[in-house]
Amino acid sequence: MIKNSKSAIAPKREENFPDWYQNVVKSADLAENSGVRGSMIIKPNGFSIWEMIQNILNGYLKQSGHKNAYFPLLIPLSYLEKEAEHVDGFAKECAVVTHSKLTAENGNLIPDGKLEEPLVIRPTSETIIGESMAKWIKSYRDLPLKLNQWANVMRWEMRTRMFLRTSEFLWQEGHTAHADEIGAREEVELIIEFYRKLIEDHLAIPALIGPKTPDEKFPGAVETFTLETLMQDNKAVQAGTSHYLGTNFAKSSGIKYLSSSTTEEYAHTTSWGVSTRLIGALIMSHSDDNGLVLPPKIAETHVVIIPVTPKESSKEEVVNYCNHLCEVINNEGFKVGTAVLRSYVDQRDLRWGEKKWDNIKKGAPIIIQIGPKDIGTDSLQIIKRNDIDNTQKIQKQDIAAALHTILCEMQSELFETAKVRVNENTKNVDDLEKFRQFFAGGGGFAIAPWCEDAIDHEILKEHKVTPRCIVNNSIGNNKCIFTGKQASALVAFAKAY
Amino acid sequence: MIKNSKSAIAPKREENFPDWYQNVVKSADLAENSGVRGSMIIKPNGFSIWEMIQNILNGYLKQSGHKNAYFPLLIPLSYLEKEAEHVDGFAKECAVVTHSKLTAENGNLIPDGKLEEPLVIRPTSETIIGESMAKWIKSYRDLPLKLNQWANVMRWEMRTRMFLRTSEFLWQEGHTAHADEIGAREEVELIIEFYRKLIEDHLAIPALIGPKTPDEKFPGAVETFTLETLMQDNKAVQAGTSHYLGTNFAKSSGIKYLSSSTTEEYAHTTSWGVSTRLIGALIMSHSDDNGLVLPPKIAETHVVIIPVTPKESSKEEVVNYCNHLCEVINNEGFKVGTAVLRSYVDQRDLRWGEKKWDNIKKGAPIIIQIGPKDIGTDSLQIIKRNDIDNTQKIQKQDIAAALHTILCEMQSELFETAKVRVNENTKNVDDLEKFRQFFAGGGGFAIAPWCEDAIDHEILKEHKVTPRCIVNNSIGNNKCIFTGKQASALVAFAKAY
Repeated sequence: MIKNSKSAIAPKREENFPDWYQNVVKSADLAENSGVRGSMIIKPNGFSIWEMIQNILNGYLKQSGHKNAYFPLLIPLSYLEKEAEHVDGFAKECAVVTHSKLTAENGNLIPDGKLEEPLVIRPTSETIIGESMAKWIKSYRDLPLKLNQWANVMRWEMRTRMFLRTSEFLWQEGHTAHADEIGAREEVELIIEFYRKLIEDHLAIPALIGPKTPDEKFPGAVETFTLETLMQDNKAVQAGTSHYLGTNFAKSSGIKYLSSSTTEEYAHTTSWGVSTRLIGALIMSHSDDNGLVLPPKIAETHVVIIPVTPKESSKEEVVNYCNHLCEVINNEGFKVGTAVLRSYVDQRDLRWGEKKWDNIKKGAPIIIQIGPKDIGTDSLQIIKRNDIDNTQKIQKQDIAAALHTILCEMQSELFETAKVRVNENTKNVDDLEKFRQFFAGGGGFAIAPWCEDAIDHEILKEHKVTPRCIVNNSIGNNKCIFTGKQASALVAFAKAY
Repeated sequence: MIKNSKSAIAPKREENFPDWYQNVVKSADLAENSGVRGSMIIKPNGFSIWEMIQNILNGYLKQSGHKNAYFPLLIPLSYLEKEAEHVDGFAKECAVVTHSKLTAENGNLIPDGKLEEPLVIRPTSETIIGESMAKWIKSYRDLPLKLNQWANVMRWEMRTRMFLRTSEFLWQEGHTAHADEIGAREEVELIIEFYRKLIEDHLAIPALIGPKTPDEKFPGAVETFTLETLMQDNKAVQAGTSHYLGTNFAKSSGIKYLSSSTTEEYAHTTSWGVSTRLIGALIMSHSDDNGLVLPPKIAETHVVIIPVTPKESSKEEVVNYCNHLCEVINNEGFKVGTAVLRSYVDQRDLRWGEKKWDNIKKGAPIIIQIGPKDIGTDSLQIIKRNDIDNTQKIQKQDIAAALHTILCEMQSELFETAKVRVNENTKNVDDLEKFRQFFAGGGGFAIAPWCEDAIDHEILKEHKVTPRCIVNNSIGNNKCIFTGKQASALVAFAKAY
């Protein structure tokens, strides 16, 4: 990175990463904080990314027999209390509904109509969906039951960061019930593979995949699998999780079935989710000092055409040419991921230089500027978002095919670039001093032998580092770098969002 | 309707319409009540109808430049208080969040962390979206601003009915801002036309369209347009509304813009929505004493193929044949509305007669039963859901095309049948006695001259009848049938859900 070069986003990443992030979100018009503490507004540019994620994942889920449904937002306290670990995990951050109306008193509105039993806005829906599963499942014929819901959830947060940590967020939560552990564990793995395809193949973010250490698993789960991603500031984002819940929730909710040999058995359940924080990971993986960089497969519009009209006399000709070009590109119907290759003519009432930079900041994968001189030639100059300093020439004939090729290349390049970066910042560390040096320096993923007694080791607290996931369970004779005891696993550590 | 004939749903419509409705919902596995007072669970069969509605409407909205976004669930009291009529309209039915965590006390969880300002779960989002519009809109160049969000909302309800009236429901709410009244009113009309296409052309429900009388309009609106539909029990369901809000919300939220002549002006805003209650209207418009009837354009699966396998020896051959047939039908890619013609082989572990009736109750548009004898012949016998007593034969060659034709016919037939029914139950009524007789009898839409002083007339209260919409504003010299004064409009009256 060359210092002091011009950039559209100030500060730059290396100067102040958190402020850079806020400014990328702002410049790309993705989201903003609301007047409601801890809640954000997802603006159209940000929401279109979420819709794309929904389309991709719905495709995988429906094809594999999962069904979307919708369960109530409000959960009675008594449901939440059923699973002890679960309630401990969420009680400290619940939004509680206590009244059912407002009454005017001295010109102010005050809560009225106190509820007999307070209700909690769902922090997650295991307990309320478990209640239904217990009713719906009677025999082995009803299994597996594979449900998913797209919903808003709330976990009160004091320190928020757009997309990454907000009190209310959007997610999908899958909940399934199976006859036995094998079936449930297959489901947990299948979902991890769907998430990997979404995150690596579409969002172009490399993921480290493995089980969570016991202290980091979901409250109430037997085992949690996670996809851990590494941002450009070398902090990790947990991008998705898939939990094997064993019979814990089945027992607390009474999810039982009659087996084919007519014995009564508890079902084995799973739950899994990805949320709008994926958008935060997307931004911090690829974006640069000029703003958002969007992998083409997740962009709603792939090509922005900007009419350059210095003279009023040729304006109409240029605009007509742009509109025609746009139509030609759109009508070919090339596919970029799950969507169709889509171009758009930016006819806003702005100077063309301003327009170019606005579209760069918003992450348009390809920009084509068309002036009067370009109309007569055989080739067009394009700006590729991940290499804006080196414009490229493409032939006008078969333009849609040419753009399609470039977009596919760009998708691969972004993934490869991210992979190189993550690999460069992943280190095997075999003693405590190297561990300390790694995190006192640039940080990243440190992979080290570990045992359960290492929880809360002072060096972890000192550097705010947490175990992100187990990389390998067969660790041989290695010693835990924190305790010197026999290690139980090779674990990836990182600072995390 | 022949009395005492066999039917799959008991009671029948004419015996007890509300119980019939509950049983159709239950038999078709669309939804059920939850343990959370006033909230329902939308099961996969019900939710797939909602997803279809979302697809159709998103198509119209995106093509016309509307953008989806997401705003916070929780609204500070101070926002709600800004528009007086609006707060009066919703204060009596708000879910109020007052605490941010739970603490264990003597083994019970109690609300803790009292909030400084209570928050209300959105009953609708005019106030919170208005807050953003005020920030985002600076000049006439920022107009029109056309936003939509798909969201859950809450209005506390004491007496609930699945899909039709629940405390929490799902909807889309559009919110737009325009430079002037003309632009805003054009928007209101455009949306009504989108809703008409959704409701009439896809859901096959005839709609009476017009403005609400002033006493029935949305709290804070200048004018509300509505689509009123008539169910088989002659009660109306308000299926969608589109509001012209004038500058009321712009003034209370400060939505101002600099005009092209550099004067500061208030924007004119609109809001509009349809909700999951549409599914209730769908059920009560078309379903019969054998269960759900789904217009093909709103069905996820159009053709259910049932293997009839009396002998174990021919079972494999029949099942293979069914699977092949299913593939042939699906691969043709015929369009039914916005979706592709889709068939499915019902291989559940059930007797085939049970399977047939289960699919009839669930509203499968077409059922094909295939037994060993059918394999050798040139034609297949099909059951069309809206005429199950008269099975039809279709040629095997070009089966997908033949099914497509039948499905298109069925779509039209359902709309025509509903239209005939609504017309038969719509009467012009020009005096009070006839009005009384109409509602003491079967009821329906009574169209009568009306003036504003007729509000709360005892006969309306006695029969629980309300003005549904204005049919005609140019009423000539007619007298209001309630007051005898000069009428101001011709109004449709009905009992309503």
